[in-house]
Amino acid sequence: MMKEEKRPLILISNDDGYDVKGINVLVDIAREYGDVVVVAPDGARSGAALSVTFQRVLTVKCVKDEPGLRVYACNGSPCDCVKIGLSEFCDRKPDLVMGGINHGDNSAVNVHYSGTMGVVIEGCLKGIPSIGFSHCSHNMDTDFTPMIPYMRRVIEHVLKKGLPNGVCLNVNAPDVPEYRGMKVCRMGQGVWTKELEARISPRGYRYYWLVGEFKSADKPDDNSDWNGLHEGYVTVTPTKIDITAYEVMEELKKTLPLAPPSMEGSGN
Amino acid sequence: MMKEEKRPLILISNDDGYDVKGINVLVDIAREYGDVVVVAPDGARSGAALSVTFQRVLTVKCVKDEPGLRVYACNGSPCDCVKIGLSEFCDRKPDLVMGGINHGDNSAVNVHYSGTMGVVIEGCLKGIPSIGFSHCSHNMDTDFTPMIPYMRRVIEHVLKKGLPNGVCLNVNAPDVPEYRGMKVCRMGQGVWTKELEARISPRGYRYYWLVGEFKSADKPDDNSDWNGLHEGYVTVTPTKIDITAYEVMEELKKTLPLAPPSMEGSGN
Repeated sequence: MMKEEKRPLILISNDDGYDVKGINVLVDIAREYGDVVVVAPDGARSGAALSVTFQRVLTVKCVKDEPGLRVYACNGSPCDCVKIGLSEFCDRKPDLVMGGINHGDNSAVNVHYSGTMGVVIEGCLKGIPSIGFSHCSHNMDTDFTPMIPYMRRVIEHVLKKGLPNGVCLNVNAPDVPEYRGMKVCRMGQGVWTKELEARISPRGYRYYWLVGEFKSADKPDDNSDWNGLHEGYVTVTPTKIDITAYEVMEELKKTLPLAPPSMEGSGN
Repeated sequence: MMKEEKRPLILISNDDGYDVKGINVLVDIAREYGDVVVVAPDGARSGAALSVTFQRVLTVKCVKDEPGLRVYACNGSPCDCVKIGLSEFCDRKPDLVMGGINHGDNSAVNVHYSGTMGVVIEGCLKGIPSIGFSHCSHNMDTDFTPMIPYMRRVIEHVLKKGLPNGVCLNVNAPDVPEYRGMKVCRMGQGVWTKELEARISPRGYRYYWLVGEFKSADKPDDNSDWNGLHEGYVTVTPTKIDITAYEVMEELKKTLPLAPPSMEGSGN
């Protein structure tokens, strides 16, 4: 009993829903290391980013309660789930917050749209070591086996050594049967193009689906997560919550007029 | 006619909806500088962050079409609005993307949840100079007048000099009648606490509203946007889209085992 209470507490969420394969695999691994609380969306929330729900109320349903594991389904966003998990369902501050395993790539600029990384950044904002795991396959029955030993390494590293304040990890695995190893990378750069698919409804109005093609802007020898994935590596991208562009502050201070305007320039 | 076509093109969105006071004030200012296309949500989307809509279709309604200004209301997120605006309603690449004026503070960690800054970061991801404007009052009829000369300065600066690739601006104004000037700041740090308000419905089930109290972690002399606002300054926080934590990469490379695991360690 005493020993049970000292196990690490791990809070898990995702953006694909509480009952998909990816999160179940992550929960099974997490249970090797600690007690697990899952608060995850009650359905798909891909692309939820760090969105939070202010315009309507949130509800939660307990769908599993067994020794060392409780699972809650929530009608909110991934970030809402973390907030509710921390506030309502964790009896102590978790040692680790994890998002995933996402069914789909969260490397490069995708980190900005990712609900999985929304979970992780929210955990990090709360001062808890946080890791996101994503797999490049969108197949909801994909085989995560090759990824698992790498996940164990990252989890063990973070449980043992923690992470610097304000830094979390974005781990992605390529959709290939065997990996060349793991690589610490920077976030790739590039741009989504052709993002709108327009259609005409049976009733004659125009509507759109969000789609897109990602064009990487990384040079072939750049140590980016996007390149690493395409070379067959599991990539680990350390990610920070302070998004200040410090390097441009001095130039802005010099070139922007900062003093209070004179009355004649004060507009309408 | 020729001259008209050479005016700057400015794409505007927000997260409070296409018809609120804040966006109308921003549109009026923007029209001094160029042709304006507005694609904004058809209702409130506070806290939308950089969320994008994959699970349902998007529709758009033109609500105003006059020389130099078209306004579209969209059922999607702020970021969706930018994607649709760029793809469907801009006949050329805009010279500027702007979000706001938001009715509420987007300084410090709020930048991560902000739909207004979702607009701006999306513009920046598309390689377009982008600025977000927010006002600390949540009063939907607040007086934006003291903010306007500062907004003109920032817009003129960006139209003339552009912004470094991958950097956008997060401009916040305090809710006081007079400002001490403008300050270039870093993003403040801190944590939201007491974020859940639980209630019991008339039918007896428990539900939650997201609420919260922000606790700043900035020291009193930190040059943070949060502090700047509380000192009565309009704050300009340069914000970047590359969120790699470069400073921890070397340590991670040294301490994480990166080679492919031996077969006996490869788990299930």
